[in-house]
Amino acid sequence: MSAPIITLLTDFGTADGYVAEVKGVLLSLAPVAQLVDCTHDVPPHDVELGRLTLARYWRRFPAGPVHVAVVDPGVGSSRAAIAVESEGRFLVGPDNGLLSPALIGKGARVVRLETSGAASRTFHGRDVFAPAAAALATGTPLDVLGAPFENPVIRRTPVVRARPDGAMQGEIIAVDRFGNAITNLLARPGTVEIAGRRLAVLPTYASATDGEPFAVAGSGGLLEIAVRDGRAADRLGIGRETPVALHPVR
Amino acid sequence: MSAPIITLLTDFGTADGYVAEVKGVLLSLAPVAQLVDCTHDVPPHDVELGRLTLARYWRRFPAGPVHVAVVDPGVGSSRAAIAVESEGRFLVGPDNGLLSPALIGKGARVVRLETSGAASRTFHGRDVFAPAAAALATGTPLDVLGAPFENPVIRRTPVVRARPDGAMQGEIIAVDRFGNAITNLLARPGTVEIAGRRLAVLPTYASATDGEPFAVAGSGGLLEIAVRDGRAADRLGIGRETPVALHPVR
Amino acid sequence: MSAPIITLLTDFGTADGYVAEVKGVLLSLAPVAQLVDCTHDVPPHDVELGRLTLARYWRRFPAGPVHVAVVDPGVGSSRAAIAVESEGRFLVGPDNGLLSPALIGKGARVVRLETSGAASRTFHGRDVFAPAAAALATGTPLDVLGAPFENPVIRRTPVVRARPDGAMQGEIIAVDRFGNAITNLLARPGTVEIAGRRLAVLPTYASATDGEPFAVAGSGGLLEIAVRDGRAADRLGIGRETPVALHPVR
Repeated sequence: MSAPIITLLTDFGTADGYVAEVKGVLLSLAPVAQLVDCTHDVPPHDVELGRLTLARYWRRFPAGPVHVAVVDPGVGSSRAAIAVESEGRFLVGPDNGLLSPALIGKGARVVRLETSGAASRTFHGRDVFAPAAAALATGTPLDVLGAPFENPVIRRTPVVRARPDGAMQGEIIAVDRFGNAITNLLARPGTVEIAGRRLAVLPTYASATDGEPFAVAGSGGLLEIAVRDGRAADRLGIGRETPVALHPVR
Repeated sequence: MSAPIITLLTDFGTADGYVAEVKGVLLSLAPVAQLVDCTHDVPPHDVELGRLTLARYWRRFPAGPVHVAVVDPGVGSSRAAIAVESEGRFLVGPDNGLLSPALIGKGARVVRLETSGAASRTFHGRDVFAPAAAALATGTPLDVLGAPFENPVIRRTPVVRARPDGAMQGEIIAVDRFGNAITNLLARPGTVEIAGRRLAVLPTYASATDGEPFAVAGSGGLLEIAVRDGRAADRLGIGRETPVALHPVR
Repeated sequence: MSAPIITLLTDFGTADGYVAEVKGVLLSLAPVAQLVDCTHDVPPHDVELGRLTLARYWRRFPAGPVHVAVVDPGVGSSRAAIAVESEGRFLVGPDNGLLSPALIGKGARVVRLETSGAASRTFHGRDVFAPAAAALATGTPLDVLGAPFENPVIRRTPVVRARPDGAMQGEIIAVDRFGNAITNLLARPGTVEIAGRRLAVLPTYASATDGEPFAVAGSGGLLEIAVRDGRAADRLGIGRETPVALHPVR
């Protein structure tokens, strides 16, 4: 039998030792767990980018993992700490919308974790979320961790609007490490309007001309703006919330 | 039974492949070990920050782990390479004060590792510390690794001074990824004097007003200077060694 | 028995979640595998630096590992996806020279991986390389993964030229995190000519004078240009492709 998986997403970086503290607690309470670093490089306090990153991977792991996700500007406030069971996966983290990808799953169950007592008021990753994750990884049922929690905060990707001219009006939701600008538009054939330019939707990066911006279906199914051998976001001066429209082929 | 844990702290970054070499050596010599990345992002040659990071986590792991810690500007000099057993944990690294958190533990035992022979003169992480860590992880007793070593280098956090006016005079010892400035003062109620300002000690981040600097008990028990939704170190123009005083509530 | 090892080298960074997707696929298909992060910080699309990093570690792991290496500017083009068996190690990645260190091994065998069908045209790391790596890690023979592939792309470190004056003429091939400039010259006693200066080849970092550039045998056996307590590349204004000559001691 393989070891229970606990994955980690944080905005802690690693240099300060906070992540190592969390790992120490996890392995103390769940010695058989296999820890998997997803990322510690979410920009500090950027719940929205953390949510988009979590959305990419939480269902890619085999059933049963515990995903710890901590981007938590509201630590120490009245925001709840929660644990979620959704589609055979467990997640723990703050109730600020970070866990939305799992919360909107059909049949998702949510409980509120206890945060009083000895828990630090500034480091729930170590004192609240790690112990809860270790408990889930070692077989503790969700219900034992806390009382049912209603109405968790849900964050959603901005909705796309159908324009009178038949175009789909969306926006850039993220820029990745390669400078690709990811939109909220489902990829489909057509032409794209962004930053005063018209771009073709190409089938692959390789079909593009060096230096010429283009659109392409990203690996998550959304339309991306890219430049072969370059950074599209820098080239076009675009970023999160830049409007983008797709004129589908009729 | 769970696998023996070997944790890693370095200032190597990962891009150059040095960390991967260390991991290859560890898994060659201790195939059953579980490797845990603590950090590879200690600023190059910053022994002091490495020491503070190690201090945070070395006792958080269950008894028995081997902590490898390598921030080693003196590699190839006469500085010793050491292995330590302290409070049920093992550590290996250079004798430059990096391992001080464990060295000052009661009953700590220290041996000197052999560094001559085939070992590279520039990469003891791979050639000296990894083999020693693998040996410890697979059950080799500390004494077998080398002769007892007296008087290892100890680095200590700067001491706090009691002022005639009743205030505790300390300094900033680190700035973390969130821009929080960590002091050497034990957190307690009062007011803080720093950079010509007076700040309240608040119970949580959440009690603060957006944009207003304040002091708060950090997760390690030390007083921190923070700004909600901002970077305190940048806002106040403070950094390591900036003086800070705490006027305790009487 | 220890778990099969799958190592990862990418230029993805971790923040966007691409690495986490790859890990999810790997653990879904090879639940018993032990994942080892080598690096995700190869500069974007820098196949050459990726190759040099891979060269450092691929043989350091015990026999049997699967090394996944993805720096893949040509994804979606006609470049092949390959799997390699060389000196008891397996590797998977794009056919762009990244895997050269293993390809030039004696008796290396190479097969071409299937990339059509459901695979994303932009993310072969997740859709092609991870499934192939998981198959190899769980015992699938190389031949089952694809047909033999002839003439993979081989990248080689630039050759050193013997000058009429007896010096060896080389160049800088990489600058590491510490600002050390790594040459393609095998280290040996002598003096080095670079950027209009003459530098001594010293036995260790510790033999150097603070602030004075010098040459030293790096941990991989190549000559490096370094400055004690400083960054040689910045100090001398040197970088990749800067010419460097070694005048060996006669």
